[in-house]
Amino acid sequence: MSARTNTGASDAVRRLTRWAEDFPEPGVSFADLTPVFADPVAFRAVVHELSTAAPDADTIASVDARGFLLGGGVGLTLGAGVLAVRKSGKLPPPVLSESYQLEYGASTLEIPADAIDLSGRRVLVVDDVLATGGTLEATARLVESAGAQVVAVCVVLEIAALGGRRRLEKYPLSSVLTV
Amino acid sequence: MSARTNTGASDAVRRLTRWAEDFPEPGVSFADLTPVFADPVAFRAVVHELSTAAPDADTIASVDARGFLLGGGVGLTLGAGVLAVRKSGKLPPPVLSESYQLEYGASTLEIPADAIDLSGRRVLVVDDVLATGGTLEATARLVESAGAQVVAVCVVLEIAALGGRRRLEKYPLSSVLTV
Repeated sequence: MSARTNTGASDAVRRLTRWAEDFPEPGVSFADLTPVFADPVAFRAVVHELSTAAPDADTIASVDARGFLLGGGVGLTLGAGVLAVRKSGKLPPPVLSESYQLEYGASTLEIPADAIDLSGRRVLVVDDVLATGGTLEATARLVESAGAQVVAVCVVLEIAALGGRRRLEKYPLSSVLTV
Repeated sequence: MSARTNTGASDAVRRLTRWAEDFPEPGVSFADLTPVFADPVAFRAVVHELSTAAPDADTIASVDARGFLLGGGVGLTLGAGVLAVRKSGKLPPPVLSESYQLEYGASTLEIPADAIDLSGRRVLVVDDVLATGGTLEATARLVESAGAQVVAVCVVLEIAALGGRRRLEKYPLSSVLTV
């Protein structure tokens, strides 16, 4: 990854992110990255930078729902499979699940308990935003509970003030842009 | 797209899809494609076949949430931007929205009303499953209401008995596997 490409991706994220105050509830600042993804040059630059976080990963774990969009691009770039980590209730049983607290409420993540053998897989966890880190920490635990190894975690936008990085100290963690 | 690659993608979908009866409610057969996406060879083959549906598209409209995973891969393959078409309540205002009936209930799709200029864009609509066609029809209408042209619609799995194809007659429609 050249410094030039790196700068292109982070500049695009800074320029195109649509910030909304008090969404989805009062006091929360919401970063809507849909304009970044909808821009062909920005999307490609961001996916390529995320892909450098773990070039030898064989599986991309992406988080419902915005992470899926990034996971699909990174998986294709690296020739890896893409594990869709779902919000609860979206997958038919049997599932493996992991519950956690997040910035505004509680949530549960699920993956199929059969049909996908994750044992020994080298997993790169991908999402759009790192806020408090609860979702990414739960994703990593869920993947590990299925017998896989989390080799790195990467996000497009890290919101440093929310301290999510502390919850992911076990893993190499990178972001395209930190604010 | 060679016949051989084509067969590889459809065979992979047939072999890896996890069917569940009576999910999410009695009488509904649910096709869980997560094992297809998690397989590196199958994921790549499926994304490449979807990408042949409109090689000149400049934007991929993908549907929340499973379509995002495919949209990310197809967007990267074609050098296109990826429009995340969201379920209602996920995006901060202002939004463009489109409501519709679906197999089990009603739903609304949304995209940002500002920050993404879709006028004149050539859009390929991508999703995982074509059932009754309500979601894909609403996605196409939403994209058109923003001034874009829908050049094709493609899905991984078409469930022919549910007749969704009839609701999408205006568009070239292709599927990797029809059951």
